[in-house]
Amino acid sequence: MLISMKPNATTEEIEKICEKIRELGFTPHVIPGAQRVAIGITGNPGPIDPQHFAHFTGIAEMIPVSKPYKLVSREVKPEDTVIHFENASIGGEEIAIIAGPCAVESREQILETACAVKEAGAKFLRGGAFKPRTSPYSFQGLKEEGLKLLAEAREKTGLYIVTEAKDVQTLPMVEEYADIIQIGARNMQNFSLLEAAGKASKPVLLKRGMWATITELFMAAEYILSQGNYKVILCERGIRTFETLTRNTLDLGAVTVIKQLSHLPVIVDPSHGIGIAASVPPLAKAAISAGADGVMIEVHPQPSKALSDGPQSIGFQSFFTLMKELKKIARVVNRKIT
Amino acid sequence: MLISMKPNATTEEIEKICEKIRELGFTPHVIPGAQRVAIGITGNPGPIDPQHFAHFTGIAEMIPVSKPYKLVSREVKPEDTVIHFENASIGGEEIAIIAGPCAVESREQILETACAVKEAGAKFLRGGAFKPRTSPYSFQGLKEEGLKLLAEAREKTGLYIVTEAKDVQTLPMVEEYADIIQIGARNMQNFSLLEAAGKASKPVLLKRGMWATITELFMAAEYILSQGNYKVILCERGIRTFETLTRNTLDLGAVTVIKQLSHLPVIVDPSHGIGIAASVPPLAKAAISAGADGVMIEVHPQPSKALSDGPQSIGFQSFFTLMKELKKIARVVNRKIT
Amino acid sequence: MLISMKPNATTEEIEKICEKIRELGFTPHVIPGAQRVAIGITGNPGPIDPQHFAHFTGIAEMIPVSKPYKLVSREVKPEDTVIHFENASIGGEEIAIIAGPCAVESREQILETACAVKEAGAKFLRGGAFKPRTSPYSFQGLKEEGLKLLAEAREKTGLYIVTEAKDVQTLPMVEEYADIIQIGARNMQNFSLLEAAGKASKPVLLKRGMWATITELFMAAEYILSQGNYKVILCERGIRTFETLTRNTLDLGAVTVIKQLSHLPVIVDPSHGIGIAASVPPLAKAAISAGADGVMIEVHPQPSKALSDGPQSIGFQSFFTLMKELKKIARVVNRKIT
Amino acid sequence: MLISMKPNATTEEIEKICEKIRELGFTPHVIPGAQRVAIGITGNPGPIDPQHFAHFTGIAEMIPVSKPYKLVSREVKPEDTVIHFENASIGGEEIAIIAGPCAVESREQILETACAVKEAGAKFLRGGAFKPRTSPYSFQGLKEEGLKLLAEAREKTGLYIVTEAKDVQTLPMVEEYADIIQIGARNMQNFSLLEAAGKASKPVLLKRGMWATITELFMAAEYILSQGNYKVILCERGIRTFETLTRNTLDLGAVTVIKQLSHLPVIVDPSHGIGIAASVPPLAKAAISAGADGVMIEVHPQPSKALSDGPQSIGFQSFFTLMKELKKIARVVNRKIT
Repeated sequence: MLISMKPNATTEEIEKICEKIRELGFTPHVIPGAQRVAIGITGNPGPIDPQHFAHFTGIAEMIPVSKPYKLVSREVKPEDTVIHFENASIGGEEIAIIAGPCAVESREQILETACAVKEAGAKFLRGGAFKPRTSPYSFQGLKEEGLKLLAEAREKTGLYIVTEAKDVQTLPMVEEYADIIQIGARNMQNFSLLEAAGKASKPVLLKRGMWATITELFMAAEYILSQGNYKVILCERGIRTFETLTRNTLDLGAVTVIKQLSHLPVIVDPSHGIGIAASVPPLAKAAISAGADGVMIEVHPQPSKALSDGPQSIGFQSFFTLMKELKKIARVVNRKIT
Repeated sequence: MLISMKPNATTEEIEKICEKIRELGFTPHVIPGAQRVAIGITGNPGPIDPQHFAHFTGIAEMIPVSKPYKLVSREVKPEDTVIHFENASIGGEEIAIIAGPCAVESREQILETACAVKEAGAKFLRGGAFKPRTSPYSFQGLKEEGLKLLAEAREKTGLYIVTEAKDVQTLPMVEEYADIIQIGARNMQNFSLLEAAGKASKPVLLKRGMWATITELFMAAEYILSQGNYKVILCERGIRTFETLTRNTLDLGAVTVIKQLSHLPVIVDPSHGIGIAASVPPLAKAAISAGADGVMIEVHPQPSKALSDGPQSIGFQSFFTLMKELKKIARVVNRKIT
Repeated sequence: MLISMKPNATTEEIEKICEKIRELGFTPHVIPGAQRVAIGITGNPGPIDPQHFAHFTGIAEMIPVSKPYKLVSREVKPEDTVIHFENASIGGEEIAIIAGPCAVESREQILETACAVKEAGAKFLRGGAFKPRTSPYSFQGLKEEGLKLLAEAREKTGLYIVTEAKDVQTLPMVEEYADIIQIGARNMQNFSLLEAAGKASKPVLLKRGMWATITELFMAAEYILSQGNYKVILCERGIRTFETLTRNTLDLGAVTVIKQLSHLPVIVDPSHGIGIAASVPPLAKAAISAGADGVMIEVHPQPSKALSDGPQSIGFQSFFTLMKELKKIARVVNRKIT
Repeated sequence: MLISMKPNATTEEIEKICEKIRELGFTPHVIPGAQRVAIGITGNPGPIDPQHFAHFTGIAEMIPVSKPYKLVSREVKPEDTVIHFENASIGGEEIAIIAGPCAVESREQILETACAVKEAGAKFLRGGAFKPRTSPYSFQGLKEEGLKLLAEAREKTGLYIVTEAKDVQTLPMVEEYADIIQIGARNMQNFSLLEAAGKASKPVLLKRGMWATITELFMAAEYILSQGNYKVILCERGIRTFETLTRNTLDLGAVTVIKQLSHLPVIVDPSHGIGIAASVPPLAKAAISAGADGVMIEVHPQPSKALSDGPQSIGFQSFFTLMKELKKIARVVNRKIT
């Protein structure tokens, strides 16, 4: 259920309702909107009797929520969520560009890449320090050493750091170094990790599992929001289908549906989505055209020598060219890349 | 195998090689290129001994073809295939816009729609007269009556007609009325129909089956080309996946791969690809950004009253707005809509 | 809608109701049951007003049908459909064994195989004379020559012939030679072929498309039944998924669901379903255990030399061993192989 | 690489080779076989020069392993792995029957169910205490309380307990109470959990992710084995496809392929695999026929009142009947249920 407050409701009125909700054994979520505040209620096993709130002042409407997800739904919060950084934002007019290597491999590699993507106009640097790998025998990342290199790159370039938390144990360490905590596709239904991320102080970039329906992606985000962290960015990165020429099938239709049903920002990772470097630039442009709030691009100084996911990484020159085109596309769809 | 001729090879030299190929029991396909002519060979069960051609003049190179498809491959013809109409083209600089209702329902409906999409800038009118339907109890189209109405719309507007041939029996009738013969997704591996279309005099728009890999789409096109009809336009229209919020999963990554591997034009049908009207405009823009040579859009005077596929059709106003945006997107990717 | 007649309703009463249905512009389907006759109505665009039948005698009940498919539904006909041959049946207590090569390749091959599978206990011989192939350059079958060889094999062994009709044009020829007309997976939604098969005099074996939901399979069968041919055998043969180690994913769960929802017999083709010879015997046993009414097994004198689908064919010795085990499994599930 | 020792190789010879492997920076895995011992090597980034072992005695052969998975492969260990319990075994002649509710709900529910399935002939009791749920608002299990109830049920019936570890944090607690630690489908690529399970003292039941290829399932198992826990039971429980009438598509073909490629036991969970109670018994029989080493069945005293997954649970009476049939099926495939 959602309690929509009157435009002139006071903080005190809001707090009293929250207290009542807690008293009933549920959890209140205060959601500020452009016009007025709404209070989402979670933790209730079924419908709540509106009578409980009959004597409270400041309430405009009490709205039953029809979807299995609540806090991520536009029913609960019609306005787009915008996540603000000092010098950037995700989900508003600005298109977010997140670029960098799949994995942090060395000081030289990450610093060189950071400088290059910064110069091209990216504001966020990606790079994995903890790498979940299909094989136990593959390179698993530089771990804390990698996080430190990312921090150094931030220091040097001013880029914000996006890096993956692989499990609950290493989440606190990632949280310390990262500006955005990434949860990888394979962990989309690692509910313990989602809950922990819901208690983290940093925004969370949640990748869609390659098997996951849009509804399940919303439910996974709901795990995070229901713990109090409302700064969640969804990420479409390709689903698994029968096609074998591409690594995954990038589902740009999902981006359009997500924008219709949820207020959360959604970005696209065409590099993992297709797995073919030559296809990344056209799909990045397509993603922005389809309404995505940003793209995440794998960029590597020497794609052919990458320790992880080389065939889908593009080089600096390709990234420069792509950025010029993305800026033009952004303008066509009334967005901007600054 | 592919025989690449010298730039100055004579028609006579080419013809002599073709004769030799026929003599060996195979079929020669003369493929003109920007610089020089190539001769594809089909019908051979395995590799052909190059010795057969040792004494012929005018040959530059003999190239084994590594893919199961030959005539559709860029290995055989590196330049893009452009299909020319008096007043339009598909596969070149121009982006093709094909618009109209799912099914021709009445004289008024089709004429009104034709005028509207013409005014907005489309050059091709779509509309089904023979409708393959999942249920035997659903509306199956106006049949020849529908074709006549399409012809009347062409007469009135100058639009070229794209309409579906449902089976071998009705193909000749469709061929007579249509400017482009459409083969629907469910018929993508109706090999008898493909062979018949390969003998038709009109270009063929071949839709990807919702179960079909890109390679299988190429093989289906190969059926048509191998019969001598080289004017084939491929069409991505969504594949079947586990996602249930969308009708299909539109695979724009496939567009990028098709452009890499084949010289044939490829267009996108976002209406069937997603099945949600609000998602059609963003996906149409995404398709052009991804490198498609055109889009096919379901437009209906009153989408909510359509006899077939109403929920995915857009109205005239939405189409007008979309066309303006598509023109801008086309410019960004160095294409044009005239 | 379904009109359920009283147990003692007369032929005259039934015929009068059918006349009324025809008069309303719809099609009556008289469906004999164990206790009483039912009359299915098709061709009606929406619900029919029961008032039309208010004054007719012999009617027990008028039942609205809730599924999009009608004639194939157990709602309309609760008893299993059994298709009888002189010396065999499909859908009753007896388990049907259909065996033979993917394609008829030569007189020797088909006769030798026919004798072997007959001796092992099969009552039906499969073998393709018209082969739909992904590539236009692959072996397409011996065509009428192949049908004649099948007829000769029947002559010699008494086996019933199951062979595929690839298109409407060759259907009459196949109908002449075959005891059961097979419609292949790729043709499951070739609606013109389904309609033609619905007018044929022989039973139809309808394979599930590799992309098709169970409901779509039912709708395809409905095309055949609605034309008056009620002798349809459904065939599960694997669907397309992301798994690449197997050719398809055999969906034995579908068999259980089909038996719950439809009265039609359902058999399983493990050879195409998995594409690995060593997996065929265990999956054939699993199919019978899951409730299938029969299995269709690819058997070849020399699997490694088969012109089509060799890797999934088993040899005579394996088939003999399998038949012994299938007989035991049949007994456990209260069926028999005679 | 695999070092196959001579039948008469001494423990000392084996240990010397292990030392050398450790010295090279890799990990040796001693794998006892029926005839002779093999030593698997993991941790090597590429091929190992056989020269390193040129001067060691007792070596019969040095075999390169061609698959990305090593320790789970039949190439490394041709004989079936059998996991022994005091009074039962999994992977040998005996078919393992694991039965019980989806979730432990109450003392009465679990004890009643334990007694019933014990009486019917099951040797293993399943029941979730930690439940990973798609929605944060769904019942998440009784946690340690649930584990204690399972232990009480074991006390009372002698059944072995199979229960899920949801994350690394609760794994030690689950390990303490369980006889077999289950890793759920959504956690199949939770690599931190797999590694932790690889260090556990109890056998691990690893469920196939609904998106996972067979090869990925093997790689997940390899994570566990490479940490030294060789007691892994694989579990097929349905994959995600486009079909919507069933919850998942149970892939019994995968069972046949797993048995061909790996020595690990594989069981089948038809309850999750299909999600329809009436389909569970036929699919359980099919699983054993297909060669599975056991089945895992959801049984509940009152399926319609289950807190989790009620529609796929069967009642006691159905389970009794099923067990009788399974015993007969087991005999047909030369296995037994004691």
